[in-house]
Amino acid sequence: MFYGGDYNPEQWPEEVWKEDVALMRRAGVNLVTVGVFSWARLEPSPGVYDFTWLDTVMDLLHEGGVQVDLATPTASPPPWFSLLHPDALPVTAEGTRLTHGSRDTYCVSAPPYRQASMSIARALAERYHAHPALAMWHVHNEYGTRCHCDHVAAAFRQWLEIRYGALAALNEAWTTAFWSQGYSAWEQVTPPRATQYLPNPSQALDFRRFLSDELLGHFTAQRDLLKSFTPHLPVTTNFVFGDWVPVNHQRWAREVDVVAIDHYPSGPGTTAVEEGAFAADLARSWAGGRPWLLMEQAAGVVYTGARMVAKREGETIRHSMQHVARGADGVLFFQWRASRGGAEQWHAGMVPHAGPSSRLFGEICELGALLSDTEADGEVAAEVALLWDAEAWWALGSPGLPSLELDYLDALRQAHRVLYHHGHTADFAAPSADLSRYRAVLVPSLYLLSDADAANLARYVEAGGTLVVSFFSGVADEHARVRLGGYPGALRDVLGVRVEELRPLDGPVSLTHGLTGTLWSEVVHLEGATAVTAYPDGAPAITRRRGAFYLSTRLDDAGYAWVLRQAGLAMPDSPVELVRRGDTVFAINHTDLPHTVAGPGGGPLRLEPGQVRLYPAQTSR
Amino acid sequence: MFYGGDYNPEQWPEEVWKEDVALMRRAGVNLVTVGVFSWARLEPSPGVYDFTWLDTVMDLLHEGGVQVDLATPTASPPPWFSLLHPDALPVTAEGTRLTHGSRDTYCVSAPPYRQASMSIARALAERYHAHPALAMWHVHNEYGTRCHCDHVAAAFRQWLEIRYGALAALNEAWTTAFWSQGYSAWEQVTPPRATQYLPNPSQALDFRRFLSDELLGHFTAQRDLLKSFTPHLPVTTNFVFGDWVPVNHQRWAREVDVVAIDHYPSGPGTTAVEEGAFAADLARSWAGGRPWLLMEQAAGVVYTGARMVAKREGETIRHSMQHVARGADGVLFFQWRASRGGAEQWHAGMVPHAGPSSRLFGEICELGALLSDTEADGEVAAEVALLWDAEAWWALGSPGLPSLELDYLDALRQAHRVLYHHGHTADFAAPSADLSRYRAVLVPSLYLLSDADAANLARYVEAGGTLVVSFFSGVADEHARVRLGGYPGALRDVLGVRVEELRPLDGPVSLTHGLTGTLWSEVVHLEGATAVTAYPDGAPAITRRRGAFYLSTRLDDAGYAWVLRQAGLAMPDSPVELVRRGDTVFAINHTDLPHTVAGPGGGPLRLEPGQVRLYPAQTSR
Amino acid sequence: MFYGGDYNPEQWPEEVWKEDVALMRRAGVNLVTVGVFSWARLEPSPGVYDFTWLDTVMDLLHEGGVQVDLATPTASPPPWFSLLHPDALPVTAEGTRLTHGSRDTYCVSAPPYRQASMSIARALAERYHAHPALAMWHVHNEYGTRCHCDHVAAAFRQWLEIRYGALAALNEAWTTAFWSQGYSAWEQVTPPRATQYLPNPSQALDFRRFLSDELLGHFTAQRDLLKSFTPHLPVTTNFVFGDWVPVNHQRWAREVDVVAIDHYPSGPGTTAVEEGAFAADLARSWAGGRPWLLMEQAAGVVYTGARMVAKREGETIRHSMQHVARGADGVLFFQWRASRGGAEQWHAGMVPHAGPSSRLFGEICELGALLSDTEADGEVAAEVALLWDAEAWWALGSPGLPSLELDYLDALRQAHRVLYHHGHTADFAAPSADLSRYRAVLVPSLYLLSDADAANLARYVEAGGTLVVSFFSGVADEHARVRLGGYPGALRDVLGVRVEELRPLDGPVSLTHGLTGTLWSEVVHLEGATAVTAYPDGAPAITRRRGAFYLSTRLDDAGYAWVLRQAGLAMPDSPVELVRRGDTVFAINHTDLPHTVAGPGGGPLRLEPGQVRLYPAQTSR
Repeated sequence: MFYGGDYNPEQWPEEVWKEDVALMRRAGVNLVTVGVFSWARLEPSPGVYDFTWLDTVMDLLHEGGVQVDLATPTASPPPWFSLLHPDALPVTAEGTRLTHGSRDTYCVSAPPYRQASMSIARALAERYHAHPALAMWHVHNEYGTRCHCDHVAAAFRQWLEIRYGALAALNEAWTTAFWSQGYSAWEQVTPPRATQYLPNPSQALDFRRFLSDELLGHFTAQRDLLKSFTPHLPVTTNFVFGDWVPVNHQRWAREVDVVAIDHYPSGPGTTAVEEGAFAADLARSWAGGRPWLLMEQAAGVVYTGARMVAKREGETIRHSMQHVARGADGVLFFQWRASRGGAEQWHAGMVPHAGPSSRLFGEICELGALLSDTEADGEVAAEVALLWDAEAWWALGSPGLPSLELDYLDALRQAHRVLYHHGHTADFAAPSADLSRYRAVLVPSLYLLSDADAANLARYVEAGGTLVVSFFSGVADEHARVRLGGYPGALRDVLGVRVEELRPLDGPVSLTHGLTGTLWSEVVHLEGATAVTAYPDGAPAITRRRGAFYLSTRLDDAGYAWVLRQAGLAMPDSPVELVRRGDTVFAINHTDLPHTVAGPGGGPLRLEPGQVRLYPAQTSR
Repeated sequence: MFYGGDYNPEQWPEEVWKEDVALMRRAGVNLVTVGVFSWARLEPSPGVYDFTWLDTVMDLLHEGGVQVDLATPTASPPPWFSLLHPDALPVTAEGTRLTHGSRDTYCVSAPPYRQASMSIARALAERYHAHPALAMWHVHNEYGTRCHCDHVAAAFRQWLEIRYGALAALNEAWTTAFWSQGYSAWEQVTPPRATQYLPNPSQALDFRRFLSDELLGHFTAQRDLLKSFTPHLPVTTNFVFGDWVPVNHQRWAREVDVVAIDHYPSGPGTTAVEEGAFAADLARSWAGGRPWLLMEQAAGVVYTGARMVAKREGETIRHSMQHVARGADGVLFFQWRASRGGAEQWHAGMVPHAGPSSRLFGEICELGALLSDTEADGEVAAEVALLWDAEAWWALGSPGLPSLELDYLDALRQAHRVLYHHGHTADFAAPSADLSRYRAVLVPSLYLLSDADAANLARYVEAGGTLVVSFFSGVADEHARVRLGGYPGALRDVLGVRVEELRPLDGPVSLTHGLTGTLWSEVVHLEGATAVTAYPDGAPAITRRRGAFYLSTRLDDAGYAWVLRQAGLAMPDSPVELVRRGDTVFAINHTDLPHTVAGPGGGPLRLEPGQVRLYPAQTSR
Repeated sequence: MFYGGDYNPEQWPEEVWKEDVALMRRAGVNLVTVGVFSWARLEPSPGVYDFTWLDTVMDLLHEGGVQVDLATPTASPPPWFSLLHPDALPVTAEGTRLTHGSRDTYCVSAPPYRQASMSIARALAERYHAHPALAMWHVHNEYGTRCHCDHVAAAFRQWLEIRYGALAALNEAWTTAFWSQGYSAWEQVTPPRATQYLPNPSQALDFRRFLSDELLGHFTAQRDLLKSFTPHLPVTTNFVFGDWVPVNHQRWAREVDVVAIDHYPSGPGTTAVEEGAFAADLARSWAGGRPWLLMEQAAGVVYTGARMVAKREGETIRHSMQHVARGADGVLFFQWRASRGGAEQWHAGMVPHAGPSSRLFGEICELGALLSDTEADGEVAAEVALLWDAEAWWALGSPGLPSLELDYLDALRQAHRVLYHHGHTADFAAPSADLSRYRAVLVPSLYLLSDADAANLARYVEAGGTLVVSFFSGVADEHARVRLGGYPGALRDVLGVRVEELRPLDGPVSLTHGLTGTLWSEVVHLEGATAVTAYPDGAPAITRRRGAFYLSTRLDDAGYAWVLRQAGLAMPDSPVELVRRGDTVFAINHTDLPHTVAGPGGGPLRLEPGQVRLYPAQTSR
């Protein structure tokens, strides 16, 4: 089990480094990420390298028994690079060329940036490929920079030519016949830049796909280079979640040796716990059974946007163990030591500003001890899958949809949250995945759906699977074009319904069975399905055809749980987080009350407030 | 009676076209607007035309008995045009040059754009001027694009030179002595571009006047060209209402053969009905007795900004008939068939995504039948006029006014709404219009007023007319300069008051007679008028001098109705929309309850919930 | 006692000027500021001057007995200047070059602007240095324009080189090791321009310091030039308060002969009174015992942002006398006559639009008479000081702090407000000032604190002083770097506490003694201090060590007053504003009720609602 964090010795005088290693030993740290933001220090002027300090750091860490996840520093080019290559700075959709003075000031498509990235990566690999501390490569940091410059435009066109072959196919896919946007030459095609009125949703969608691939190309080039030096060592990069990140992590996961995520919940308390479970399940699903890491989290603090809220006693431990329970093979933090200055001087550290003589560092040591005692391997048991598709998410962010309140992430989080509070650990699956292993598959507002993926869902139901589809799913094809003849297009047959009209709501509507719908409703005709609940006018609101359920409105959490019960899932109230990983059950009591669960051998097991317990699963699998 | 919508066959494969014509026949459609966004299809590369598809469409429509309102496609230049003429793309006040990827990406003052517009219009006229389907020309679409580039600056200066002759006159009109803005050469004068602090309100006002005229010049050039081919056919363009449109439609109405408006209410239910009556009365008043058309509306749906709200059963019909009652000679929609892709793929169509087998298309057919049975001509009876002046509206949008809450449109809507709910159909009149035919003239917050127009109002009162003026009217001259010596400047004599101070409110104030004022108050001295109601300190709040009333505060709707009663108007509660057009009364029950009205011959006539009835007026006029 | 306002005769025809002088005499006006925005009129084209009109105005004023505060017009260059020197227009952080059309459209670092400024100032000095009306020079207006262009970048680098000497020192001070921002050459350093993510807080802080100094350099150059003509005449500029002004007035005050402030309260009623006292105390403190002026205020009106709220009867007088009581030797307004046109046509004037026959002008005359009867000199008595530091304010505006709700100005205003309502007149002192004269020193959220200044505070407490420090003070050094080892860094010893964690709150927390904390809390360890009040868990919330109090949370006004009582201050409720200046007591009843105070000789003195009374202080000092 890995334990550690980002370590940025370049921020500190050399005399601190020895204290760092000693404190790491005290805390049980065995892996640190070094060099993420060290480019300016490693290459203070073009082609001039200074590795002496890093040599010392690597040696010190090795002597202290700490392994190194060595980073290429390409997420933050030095100021000299910006001056030398102004065309490699990112440009906004409005045409503003951003400048250095923060991190991520690069255009991923700019040739000088690509070249400089490879040069520094090669220099690092040449220097450290045989260093005994080196355990892993960490490429870049939180890929997600957008740019709209002419380099990007050229790369976008190249990507589109590969995707569409002929311009006619692009015109067809993007419906450029609308508003006279027909392209007659490739050079007319641009990224979605500032324009007069509503943009083209298919163009926007393809641009996000392109950006994800373009950034991925930057990653794989470095990965392949590093692998040529150290074929035996894993290469990773840290995924960061959030709807501002234009990256399809599901796709990227196939290219990293180890999936690694950064996770910063958006709120304290229950919100943090729910989001932690969500993130961990996503990471495990992306990893597809391989090991994965929690690469970054904040020690002792949750950032709500408005303020930094302190985690309560033990919460840092419980949040970490949540990830381990759900499959993580390592728990790391950003960063080891809280910075004295710079843009993130108030970001938490494992060693806070107050120093090691602090409650927080005490908890960090306690967590280290707990992890070193934890043996966890084997698969995490999950009977239910949520369909997850980044492209559908992006498409649901189009400006012209029937309601501004449509929110893919909110729909996913609700489904996951309801499962979480009723005892289910969930996987996230791609719409194209083999779903046969799942007892049930939930499909929250999957706007975009290809024919092939729709057929996959139909096969799953055909084979006896339970499918729970929420409103506004399957209505568009992979080019974000509406499927005609009745919604929900690609899913009409499997659901046995035909929706004639979409009717977004601005208030609640009462359904039968005491349910309440909000946000959305539809005019649903039964074509093979039967009604499960109805709108006030008697029209079907929720329907069922064999194992396939359709929800034409948004329910509250209790209502969604009710539907899952109708679909045959056991939905016991679960105040304690209980996750089985391999032969071990992780029981985490995030609450302020004691709770009793079915312990080892089935007997009652008491969990004190805040307690974490691991015990053998009742039966082997 | 025209019936139809925008028809965009270029979005669909040819096999759909025949079905379209068949469905149009079923629905009773007799006029469609073709080609609004077809430039890229008609002229796929510079100077290369492809009319074959349009030939087919025109022939098919003609064979099907559907007439064509043929559009010039100049509102949406093709991508090739942007690449060839980057200087013809619009520039924001901040200097961002917008690009293609949406509609309206042109600078109306750019010579290449003007030339390209005329070329495509000429090509269309040459091709189709003798086509038997051609019934009307539709120039451009929803004129309203702003630009701040150097082409615009040059044109603005030319416009100003014509308006002011000498630079000294401009300096005087704009009060450039304030903040050292005195111009010593014409080339120093620019559009209002991003600047350090508050802009010059007179410059901003003249820029909007210029923009309206500049766009109008683009229209009249095309109109004259088309007329040279088909002198007998009407030429129009579709007006679109909203405070973001920099166009003076009252002025434009004199240049079109047929006034045509697009109308999209901002809210469902009563809001939609009130806004529909308002829009129709505006269009009729702009048309000045000539026929006019509802050129665009949405079938079955209201866009609130936040969401698309479904119209209830029959509402699409009732909304349409509202316009016919108020003088429309045609009812059309955007668009015939809901788009599959593109920026407005979720905009409603007469044929929805679900296809003709739908409630909505059924209602479209029902409306077609109703319209073909409807014979309506003759004038719409209106006893009351509201003064309407786009320039006063623009001036009331200046940033430095005494209250941010001043809202010209809100003031107009309130006055119209109160009349609507109390049985009055209203005209909108320019301040310079002959007002002698009206029983009463309402003047909501007419900030800007010229001497000549003020004299017109005085003559109206002199001749026995009833004038109801609301606060902050007449205080500025036509250059947006404050009239000195006491407010409301140009109206002091006719109203018999002198206002010493303006006192915007941040809460309500109680007046005598149980009235309540909000938003605004004034320190009013009587100079010939008498007080009708008073503020708590006894000072006059509403005054009267002969037939001229002055409201120095904002009343609620009931209060405003009370004042109109004092002014001698009958103000019966009118739950049903009752409008007399020529010899026909249109009775529309927009409510969910039955109502009884005075029917033909004066006897009671029952209107079921949602019912529309037409019957002969009791007496001819 | 000076009385008057900004006089802009260039806005009016010559025939108005004589009436102006007559009205000034009637009102008792004896000083007007002329020429602030006259550049375009004085120099209508480059190098061509027209002084004839100003000659006439100066002569007329002199004949009327009105002295002139003659302004250099450099705050508003004419349009011809923008066209001639586009590189002297200001550029936003996003790179937008602003243009003329408002005031302040200049880049203070652009050589052509510097040269043009000196030329017009010299021309004015040559023309009028011996004019008998000339009493004072007024350089520029409300310095505060930001620019991010290359001229500014060059000047910023020069400033940094002087400050830091070597680039290594800058890298250290700015912690550029974070996020790879290490500079290897001076030309890499730029102003904080638009970048990809969070900016560097130390760079931002130094840029504000630089901007203040750079603008000051523009002032002192003109000042020295004017002094060379008229060594005997005072030179000033008008300070304007607000967090958008990048100027350190405390520093600037040392360079003006007379401190002059513009004051526009943000709300009516009590808010205006509290802000007036705050502004006047700041001005007096900046002046450091020298005379100062209220150079601008609005007659009869308060601007809330949303609307202009009328001052009640006598309020204009009371607001003015508040400033006199607190040390002002003059009361002026912007502007003499309300403008007819231009961006501020709705800004109040001493002569309103309605003309001199108005309540407002009557009050202006009444104020003039009162001032001419007022003899006020001598120091204003103040026992308490608030620490004030513009740099700490700027640093507390950094984007990455632990709470978005930290608000330096709010903290200062609260402390001042509480003193105001409990009978204390306060000084504002720099952290480096000699504090020995004060009974107590309050330190609201002084984020930034140098070692030297911390030592100054320690000496003050050592000598028996009372120090009341609020949360998040002293945590950062002068480079905005966090002090390590425990908060509040520089103040740990004097306060006797060590804070381990900062815990921003999103709701209230109950303290002992019936107090309530909001916004912020901390984990405080006592290291020499004792607890005064505690959090619910018993941990210290407010502490005391000798005379030094520490508040680790935000209290409401009553709670803050309670603490000041614990600190030994008498805190009587004071419904009337009572200020002693020299041998005179100013008693101002801002309320609607009569109040009785201790009058001359100690006997009761009744103040009617709204009354202002001056009387001899009980004992001489």
